[in-house]
Amino acid sequence: MKIGVLTGGGDCPGLNAVIRAVVKTAIQQYKMEVLGIIDGYYGLVNNEIKELALEDVSGIMPRGGTILGTSNVVNPFNYYTIVNGKKVYSDISDIVIKNIKANGIDVMVVIGGDGTLEIAHKFFKKGVPVVGIPKTIDNDLSATDVTFGFDTAILTATEAIDKIHTTAESHHRVMIVEVMGRNAGWIALHSGIAGGAHIILIPEIPFNYDEILKKIYERKGKGKHFSIIVVAEGAKPKGGDVVVKRFVADTTEPIRLGGIGNKVADEIEKITGFETRVTTLGHIQRGGSPSPFDRILATRFGAEAVQLVAKGDFGKMVSLRTPEIIAVPLGEAIGRQKKVATDSSYIRTAKMIGISFGDQ
Amino acid sequence: MKIGVLTGGGDCPGLNAVIRAVVKTAIQQYKMEVLGIIDGYYGLVNNEIKELALEDVSGIMPRGGTILGTSNVVNPFNYYTIVNGKKVYSDISDIVIKNIKANGIDVMVVIGGDGTLEIAHKFFKKGVPVVGIPKTIDNDLSATDVTFGFDTAILTATEAIDKIHTTAESHHRVMIVEVMGRNAGWIALHSGIAGGAHIILIPEIPFNYDEILKKIYERKGKGKHFSIIVVAEGAKPKGGDVVVKRFVADTTEPIRLGGIGNKVADEIEKITGFETRVTTLGHIQRGGSPSPFDRILATRFGAEAVQLVAKGDFGKMVSLRTPEIIAVPLGEAIGRQKKVATDSSYIRTAKMIGISFGDQ
Amino acid sequence: MKIGVLTGGGDCPGLNAVIRAVVKTAIQQYKMEVLGIIDGYYGLVNNEIKELALEDVSGIMPRGGTILGTSNVVNPFNYYTIVNGKKVYSDISDIVIKNIKANGIDVMVVIGGDGTLEIAHKFFKKGVPVVGIPKTIDNDLSATDVTFGFDTAILTATEAIDKIHTTAESHHRVMIVEVMGRNAGWIALHSGIAGGAHIILIPEIPFNYDEILKKIYERKGKGKHFSIIVVAEGAKPKGGDVVVKRFVADTTEPIRLGGIGNKVADEIEKITGFETRVTTLGHIQRGGSPSPFDRILATRFGAEAVQLVAKGDFGKMVSLRTPEIIAVPLGEAIGRQKKVATDSSYIRTAKMIGISFGDQ
Amino acid sequence: MKIGVLTGGGDCPGLNAVIRAVVKTAIQQYKMEVLGIIDGYYGLVNNEIKELALEDVSGIMPRGGTILGTSNVVNPFNYYTIVNGKKVYSDISDIVIKNIKANGIDVMVVIGGDGTLEIAHKFFKKGVPVVGIPKTIDNDLSATDVTFGFDTAILTATEAIDKIHTTAESHHRVMIVEVMGRNAGWIALHSGIAGGAHIILIPEIPFNYDEILKKIYERKGKGKHFSIIVVAEGAKPKGGDVVVKRFVADTTEPIRLGGIGNKVADEIEKITGFETRVTTLGHIQRGGSPSPFDRILATRFGAEAVQLVAKGDFGKMVSLRTPEIIAVPLGEAIGRQKKVATDSSYIRTAKMIGISFGDQ
Repeated sequence: MKIGVLTGGGDCPGLNAVIRAVVKTAIQQYKMEVLGIIDGYYGLVNNEIKELALEDVSGIMPRGGTILGTSNVVNPFNYYTIVNGKKVYSDISDIVIKNIKANGIDVMVVIGGDGTLEIAHKFFKKGVPVVGIPKTIDNDLSATDVTFGFDTAILTATEAIDKIHTTAESHHRVMIVEVMGRNAGWIALHSGIAGGAHIILIPEIPFNYDEILKKIYERKGKGKHFSIIVVAEGAKPKGGDVVVKRFVADTTEPIRLGGIGNKVADEIEKITGFETRVTTLGHIQRGGSPSPFDRILATRFGAEAVQLVAKGDFGKMVSLRTPEIIAVPLGEAIGRQKKVATDSSYIRTAKMIGISFGDQ
Repeated sequence: MKIGVLTGGGDCPGLNAVIRAVVKTAIQQYKMEVLGIIDGYYGLVNNEIKELALEDVSGIMPRGGTILGTSNVVNPFNYYTIVNGKKVYSDISDIVIKNIKANGIDVMVVIGGDGTLEIAHKFFKKGVPVVGIPKTIDNDLSATDVTFGFDTAILTATEAIDKIHTTAESHHRVMIVEVMGRNAGWIALHSGIAGGAHIILIPEIPFNYDEILKKIYERKGKGKHFSIIVVAEGAKPKGGDVVVKRFVADTTEPIRLGGIGNKVADEIEKITGFETRVTTLGHIQRGGSPSPFDRILATRFGAEAVQLVAKGDFGKMVSLRTPEIIAVPLGEAIGRQKKVATDSSYIRTAKMIGISFGDQ
Repeated sequence: MKIGVLTGGGDCPGLNAVIRAVVKTAIQQYKMEVLGIIDGYYGLVNNEIKELALEDVSGIMPRGGTILGTSNVVNPFNYYTIVNGKKVYSDISDIVIKNIKANGIDVMVVIGGDGTLEIAHKFFKKGVPVVGIPKTIDNDLSATDVTFGFDTAILTATEAIDKIHTTAESHHRVMIVEVMGRNAGWIALHSGIAGGAHIILIPEIPFNYDEILKKIYERKGKGKHFSIIVVAEGAKPKGGDVVVKRFVADTTEPIRLGGIGNKVADEIEKITGFETRVTTLGHIQRGGSPSPFDRILATRFGAEAVQLVAKGDFGKMVSLRTPEIIAVPLGEAIGRQKKVATDSSYIRTAKMIGISFGDQ
Repeated sequence: MKIGVLTGGGDCPGLNAVIRAVVKTAIQQYKMEVLGIIDGYYGLVNNEIKELALEDVSGIMPRGGTILGTSNVVNPFNYYTIVNGKKVYSDISDIVIKNIKANGIDVMVVIGGDGTLEIAHKFFKKGVPVVGIPKTIDNDLSATDVTFGFDTAILTATEAIDKIHTTAESHHRVMIVEVMGRNAGWIALHSGIAGGAHIILIPEIPFNYDEILKKIYERKGKGKHFSIIVVAEGAKPKGGDVVVKRFVADTTEPIRLGGIGNKVADEIEKITGFETRVTTLGHIQRGGSPSPFDRILATRFGAEAVQLVAKGDFGKMVSLRTPEIIAVPLGEAIGRQKKVATDSSYIRTAKMIGISFGDQ
């Protein structure tokens, strides 16, 4: 029995822990072989594949990233090549399937987010035995209680907010911290509560600038001359649009525009005159050594995936249903986003202790 | 409405987050007053009580310990005084109840472990309105999925094991890390998996020295000249007793004996001759800034407790039933320890990736 | 004897450690009194001053920021008030001197950067006994070997670069990290070496885009499909200008422009087509608990300043001349920036191990 | 030109940064080859040597330990073999020299503490070209301002003391933290000041128990019911002996005795009755990712050593004379310990802010 393992999509703390668990379980418990696919589906297209021995995964658990590399863009069902300077798309999934067979791979273990798993599902429907492992740092996948990487991102974001606090206090400033979360506000919500934010803005709850200002003034009225706002990159004002960070260039100077954090800062400063500063955490949220929680969850996912392989239970995705790891059909797992329910217990708690979501 | 809040038993990261959430929710949402009891039940016996205003809890969430102080030993139902050099015990619970009334306290919010909550339950049965909040760094309380402080302890222990790894590898040593857990092995199990331990010894699975040696030799056979053992302080060999750390004194030199970690080290060194070193993590596991997870859980517990107060729903303990916070009767919550089930999915995963528990 | 202590300019880890050392030394060793000035010179202008007792400084050493508050903008020698919507400037230093006397302050201990200390020097020349303590997170003050806050900033920046590494490697990206340093490249140089950067861009060494590209291609040629660039905010291309981050607004959307990091990214992407991402660390570099080194240095500065006070040795600034703390005349200390010498041993080391500075 | 590089003695954060700098500088700047000796002198005796390419040192800087392995016990000038169960010593240095030549090694770069460098010096006197790089986590080498590893050890120790603080305060306990330092108190002194200790006990200042108690009672008198004591393992009472941690076995139970930390705790508890707890940091002080300072210093040492090799300047040791890296003769560098001067500015500062050293 030969397993091919690939990591696709954005990198995420815990990927190496999954790979390690897959290799250790497959080789030690089941005498299987494991092949590592390089750079996600790119490696399957281009036949960049290498054997993974126990030695290759020794000591990798505490490291961020993925030893296999990843890519966000390669989709064998809609693959583009540049012809005469233009992208031409075609379905090369059969080439991939041929490569899988040529390498003697009996089953693919695919670790990735919604996009990556959707492709995996298509291969499954074309007859490739597949087991999926969910990965999204945003925690916005409804088929599992939580995904690895999320806890580490919260750690990093909370640590940053903790650091911002002292500057805010010492300088009587409004400090805005923009965190990841285009469609779901999980990271903003959790790191905002943990970091002692006064205002949290998430995509699920469109905000009013008036409410933000009210909170800031309310604090000022109590002698608190600073406020911390944590904002998810996908947050937007009521009736307004998401601010898309984009690259623009004028003739003299190409620039990159900031996102919603900067926009909120501009508004606050314009209206109140209070010094307002923005920190956009960016890629550090994806990096670093995975937290113990993420290491354990990733390890459980990896070991469980191999057990599904051993049982021949394909077309499934491993998933956390606390405290157990279960298997759910890939087809049911993909394409279903988990949003923050506006009446959830987290939101209620946050409001209880006085956090504003800019609504009402 | 006036709430008295006390923290009892060993300190634990997250206590300040609970106190903060209680005060913020009570004052801001319900216009209640909050009195802080100093040093656990000691403050109720001796009338050491102070008002807690919003200002008092500002900025305390990231700090370890408890701003109220705590004590492990004061039990008003079995209170001792020293008379003629001997401890004399008596029930002074009525004095405590008188003090509670004299301070105008309508309901007690008691944050503590099994011992502290059992006393709270006794007061409840004597007519004192009580709401309990569970606290045990060992995570060994069956009435809640998890308790705050545990995640931080795992972070600290895993970080220490990560550090130990490099010495172990560089020196070809057996390194033993002794962590907390007298009756339950949760900390050892989680930090052992997350820290990449090769052997984990927990109270729930009595171990054989032969199995430990087998694992060490098996690794040596593969060219791995080091091994990491994580051992809970309550682990014990099959048929053997728990090694109790104790204070002894001979005439020349008073000493404090080490625990099971040292004993296991002695055995391994004696039999194999391999250099073996022990690190006993001790009190640093209880300290430090709470992790984001613990801050959030503690905040949810605190806010929920005040809501129970507002509803007049007394004699209950708040509890995490993922993902909700629920209320369980105090009488059902106390005295029920949660142990690691030897066939749990954590143990199975750990064995899958090759971790030995010294059994079989 | 009564000391007035103030913190001015940008906040910086270690300020509280200085304040603590001043208060402890003054009260315990010399029975002096200490008054804390609120929000830098603002407090002296507006008479916002409070006594500092031992209790006030208990436990503050590990905290970032300053318990006294600070401000960057108040200059009593060139003080502005808004009259009819316009800033009107005047010299109100005599009011400040009157306030100092009215509060019975015998000597001012002023903790601040070049701007703050220059003002302190002016007061000294007008007869106010003053002792200065240098503070600049950028480490660009020539009168002292190093300033507190710098080591912590390096820790934070290096940790971030470590995190960025894994994403860079996993995704084959060019990752740019922009750090503080408008005039001097100390933070970029140190965190770049410590973080394993491949290219470091600092104000002292104007760079060529060609050299940057050469290094990236050279790495690619060796199979290293990623590069890490650390850039100080004041770095600039040969013959080019510093990119000033500024706030602009067009009719539809006010924006904040990025700095040199974004500009370098644009150039690289435009020419090479390699995915390039920027992380601007921003304010987190000023925050957080001070490192042990900074706590110790700040403590030494604070204690030494009080000894100067006790000796009546005014008009001096404390300074580190490794390993001793010495006193230098304020007039000689201010206005002299310490830049990275392009032939310094740090630069030579960096070049030895293959780091490019974009020059040559 | 072929360099052999070995790491000897106890492991220490920064060793990998040195190895990386040696390899990068030697190969990239001078087209030299580098051979890595496995496990210190053991590898030279047993011919366990492997080539080090650029690839081998890629990404190793942030990791603790040494990729080459180390050993504390092998001395080719006094080498023991077990004959009939007894150690028999002999001088096998000529075998080592033969091995060095057989491998084509032109010069040895030896990274180690006093013992390792003394052996290197002996080889130098026997004609082997040698460059030394100092390594001691205790910072007790007089020939260099500071050694790498020390800063990281201080970070780890200070973080632990920070964590201990909250338990001490919450429980009104005396908490003792025992840190490394058999002959010199540098780690205790620095981490004690940085960690806010109230009492610091170091080998250089024999202590009185009475003075310790006086400080504890003085604090209690001010309402501070807890005290933090940081003690170096080599601290000892006036007229008393160092407490040697040792392994003993009685018939019923082999035990490992604690050190001076435990002894001080016993005394305090016996006399005052105050709850006293000990944490012995042990091996975690040697582990972990090196701090930025240590990474930079180690990198400078490694790059400079190769430059000495290139110049043919043998028999030297690299050394930090702030801010420069210089070369000192090995013969002058070894055997000279740097102790804490009892009248040093660090001690004076510590006393100024009220820290007791148990003297007077």
